Amino acid sequence: MEATRSYTALFFILLISLSSSSSYAKKRKEYKPCKELVLFFHDIIYNGHNKANATSAIVAAPEGANRTILAGEFHFGNVAVFDDPITLDNNLHSPPVGRAQGMYLYDTKNTYTAWLGFSFSLNSTEHQGSINFVGADPLMNKTRDISIVGGTGDFFMHRGVATVMTDAYEGEVYFRLRVDMKFYECW
Amino acid sequence: MEATRSYTALFFILLISLSSSSSYAKKRKEYKPCKELVLFFHDIIYNGHNKANATSAIVAAPEGANRTILAGEFHFGNVAVFDDPITLDNNLHSPPVGRAQGMYLYDTKNTYTAWLGFSFSLNSTEHQGSINFVGADPLMNKTRDISIVGGTGDFFMHRGVATVMTDAYEGEVYFRLRVDMKFYECW
Amino acid sequence: MEATRSYTALFFILLISLSSSSSYAKKRKEYKPCKELVLFFHDIIYNGHNKANATSAIVAAPEGANRTILAGEFHFGNVAVFDDPITLDNNLHSPPVGRAQGMYLYDTKNTYTAWLGFSFSLNSTEHQGSINFVGADPLMNKTRDISIVGGTGDFFMHRGVATVMTDAYEGEVYFRLRVDMKFYECW
Repeated sequence: MEATRSYTALFFILLISLSSSSSYAKKRKEYKPCKELVLFFHDIIYNGHNKANATSAIVAAPEGANRTILAGEFHFGNVAVFDDPITLDNNLHSPPVGRAQGMYLYDTKNTYTAWLGFSFSLNSTEHQGSINFVGADPLMNKTRDISIVGGTGDFFMHRGVATVMTDAYEGEVYFRLRVDMKFYECW
Repeated sequence: MEATRSYTALFFILLISLSSSSSYAKKRKEYKPCKELVLFFHDIIYNGHNKANATSAIVAAPEGANRTILAGEFHFGNVAVFDDPITLDNNLHSPPVGRAQGMYLYDTKNTYTAWLGFSFSLNSTEHQGSINFVGADPLMNKTRDISIVGGTGDFFMHRGVATVMTDAYEGEVYFRLRVDMKFYECW
Repeated sequence: MEATRSYTALFFILLISLSSSSSYAKKRKEYKPCKELVLFFHDIIYNGHNKANATSAIVAAPEGANRTILAGEFHFGNVAVFDDPITLDNNLHSPPVGRAQGMYLYDTKNTYTAWLGFSFSLNSTEHQGSINFVGADPLMNKTRDISIVGGTGDFFMHRGVATVMTDAYEGEVYFRLRVDMKFYECW
């Protein structure tokens, strides 16, 4: 009789632990990052008049468009290459802690979306190393999640998710992105 | 004496577990995916006459080629940007469950091969989130494996392998890819 | 009594191995790769006179530059697509074991840096499969680390870090990269 009771208790304990673990799996947003980092980067697009200051350039465009002015149809088909300063806060003139380098391309004809392939090359007292990003960026959303697919140096083998927000947008010459990095695989 | 026997037993248990794990490692095709998903996407290439329908555009080409017609030499050097509807079956007119967005580039002079960097942005009752792909696509092979390097939303931190098949190819205006995704890291 | 002593010894051995592994985790450079591989690849840039031999082509350039000659300002804004032979040693004429395919783009105006998105497609008796790379390449550094973000075939689901070195550089027509791959996730 005692033994049966114990078994029953054990059964319920198992049941509870199983169900809690499976409900946990569904609430994926509760994963705790092993490292977090917030940085800003600043993109000044070449527009024919700002050669000295520009940090990015249109390098490809669809038929009928040139490489000085972003194409019509929501810039569909424009590819830009960039080398943008990274800062700790939202001030373009703060001392840079690294460079955001790579490309973005506009890939929709009826709204603003981009595809991003780029890296953060960090070189400051706090962080040395690179972080590599890949992902779709639906620009009209307040926040957009892209993948951190790898890293080197202080970010050796790291993986995670970066939430990108447009922190400022001035005409078609300047934009500033805030990047909230959450690493879930640290080494 | 008892202790010795226990040690010997422990030794053999370790030996067996080690050898079985190492032989397992070699048979890599037996890994079981933690999630599977099959989707199709449809690419309609701009050819100068189909502006309204086209879902992709040539945005870069080698010297001597233009951006309306795919270049000679197996399109070597052409880069295309795309925003293609994703469907559950092979029908272009099925209700889309998301968009495949990014780029492909033709990168061989004596056969058809491409390099892919793109994302699935899924937005349906079944799936919300993005899946990011990178890889080489030797188009003349029946099946080609590329890497799933990350994901967000329902595919948070996922990794896996996607097998790409050309499901239809109509001249140089339309192609349809079937993408069999197998995730081996789910969160 | 003997058995108790053995247990105590085992406990301390476990304790030592655990504590050493945790201190190990902090010294990230001591991680041991589960696989290593060194390969070379050879890039012959089209310059208007070497169509037959060239393995890469400039396909995009900023306003004012053409696609025959690399742009001024450290080639900022040039995108090249390539299909380069991979060899086991540093000899361009050694039998190729595969092809390096994808793109590089020059992304700084005041020094040489590139961003790389490419794959190794290996097809030899020793290795069958693909390895996918993404990362920033500050060319003036002797060694540069990029991410191995995935793989297929023999490199199924692999991740790691590749150290890239410029092994030769001849004018703006030929360069050879040595790629030291260290995989830390093998399957």
